[in-house]
Amino acid sequence: VLDAYQMRDLTDAIRPTTLLRPEKLRDKLGLDITCASEAFQHTGSFKFRAAYNVAMNVPNDHLYTASSGNFGQALAYAAKLTGKKCTVVMPDRSAKVKIEAVRSYGADVDLIDTAKIGRSQRIEQLAADMPDAYFASPYDDEFVIAGNSSLADELAGEDFDVVVVPVGGGGLISGIVKGIKRNNQTTVVFGAEPLLGNDAARSLREGRLISNENEPTTIADGARTISLGRLNWPIIKENVKEIIEVSEQKIAAAVKMLYDLANLKCEPTSGLSLGAVLEDTPKFADKKICVVVTGGNVDAEVYKQLIS
Amino acid sequence: VLDAYQMRDLTDAIRPTTLLRPEKLRDKLGLDITCASEAFQHTGSFKFRAAYNVAMNVPNDHLYTASSGNFGQALAYAAKLTGKKCTVVMPDRSAKVKIEAVRSYGADVDLIDTAKIGRSQRIEQLAADMPDAYFASPYDDEFVIAGNSSLADELAGEDFDVVVVPVGGGGLISGIVKGIKRNNQTTVVFGAEPLLGNDAARSLREGRLISNENEPTTIADGARTISLGRLNWPIIKENVKEIIEVSEQKIAAAVKMLYDLANLKCEPTSGLSLGAVLEDTPKFADKKICVVVTGGNVDAEVYKQLIS
Repeated sequence: VLDAYQMRDLTDAIRPTTLLRPEKLRDKLGLDITCASEAFQHTGSFKFRAAYNVAMNVPNDHLYTASSGNFGQALAYAAKLTGKKCTVVMPDRSAKVKIEAVRSYGADVDLIDTAKIGRSQRIEQLAADMPDAYFASPYDDEFVIAGNSSLADELAGEDFDVVVVPVGGGGLISGIVKGIKRNNQTTVVFGAEPLLGNDAARSLREGRLISNENEPTTIADGARTISLGRLNWPIIKENVKEIIEVSEQKIAAAVKMLYDLANLKCEPTSGLSLGAVLEDTPKFADKKICVVVTGGNVDAEVYKQLIS
Repeated sequence: VLDAYQMRDLTDAIRPTTLLRPEKLRDKLGLDITCASEAFQHTGSFKFRAAYNVAMNVPNDHLYTASSGNFGQALAYAAKLTGKKCTVVMPDRSAKVKIEAVRSYGADVDLIDTAKIGRSQRIEQLAADMPDAYFASPYDDEFVIAGNSSLADELAGEDFDVVVVPVGGGGLISGIVKGIKRNNQTTVVFGAEPLLGNDAARSLREGRLISNENEPTTIADGARTISLGRLNWPIIKENVKEIIEVSEQKIAAAVKMLYDLANLKCEPTSGLSLGAVLEDTPKFADKKICVVVTGGNVDAEVYKQLIS
């Protein structure tokens, strides 16, 4: 569904990504690096692209998802903008500030005790209770992938040799490769995944979809996924050159580098893409590189540790 | 000297300011606020506009200044870009990272023991030693003011009712009012100055140029100036509606708000403009407001305190 999103409506609503070329970072690494920052996107992450595309395109008046992170906020705001009802399932131990953020956009927060009921179980209940509502997966949804592909349209004019994209469920990287193809670009796409949750890297190496045994404990909380989505896997398998596994140390180093050398506040998951470059710098020599900075929402306590 | 800067050359070299409209911040304050962030400008602050304009326009092959902060870095980089020599006088107790930043752009750092020799004394020595070099004041210089005015050209298309500008030596606010006039805008300009170093506010109230007795101890280190510049004062006197005095508490609150609600890393001096809005929110109701975020260069240790 290359044309699942309605270009005109999306480009009116989403904010263009912020392209930054920090000379201190470029000089330090000796690389031609551009950051595409989604930290200033609506609700502070790229997820708004996906969420708004869902809200615009499905006929249902009620949307729901399970997300304690950026997709919950993004879907809540997209629903508000499009006059729809929204329900977000979140663990009851989620940070208050995240619960409040979702509520501030007018969505209902459905708090669950994950010791008693799993997220997918609760989603099944809701599906039975609200047959007319639309369940939006944060990554495994055609409208989500198509919404995310709008970022590739924006990058197309820059003629990057390489784009490095954080990978959790695979919704962003799937969108990026679809968008690159739609724009007839030859940009090579690298994934960047936490070593602690390297299901996608293992899947790509072995040619079959592999899951993590448990939710990864990585600091990159946007990549604490069990596996790639069903829709994402075939797109990634066919189009992604390599998924680089990034250590926790390099994720943290990347977040600090973006603080020190680019004046950019970013969330840990955003550190994956620059972290991948740090893992294998020679691979990127003499290339025009884009690292996607997925978002900026990070608790002050976590961030303080990272910039120390 | 409304046309002191060569528009074409400047607009090729400077980066456009980054305009951000963070909905969380706007909703929280109930105000139509836009941040004009210079944190992603070359060398991380608006000072590059001024420094590059100096380097482009003076015939001298050697530039020097006294600055332990953003202007030193900016002049060093501007000199590098224009193939000129640059000397920056800095106290020998300056943070190593700041000394290294200036050196990384190829400038000579002239370290002084301020217990033994004052900055202005050292500048006089250098003027005698290097008669062919050009001394660039960080704020009291026509090319500096004109370079800073380029920011107002960028804001002109946005039709702001109000723009709030941090005030130290007055170089930025002078440039902004000059640029606004050149663009035939009616935007009202407010200054934002630390209460702990309120010489400009007192000067404007009393109609004569008043100095602080000592270097102010404010956390807004870009505004630790003794007085407005000679060139800046008459421009401010004639064109600035009001200079709002901002408490240290409100400066810190603004930096934290920009972190929490705008995903924006900014230096304490940048907190002055939003801090001024916090000091007197009703004044800004129903206005289209621009707060100028002057830069993003802040040590991690300082920043960690501010976002706590």
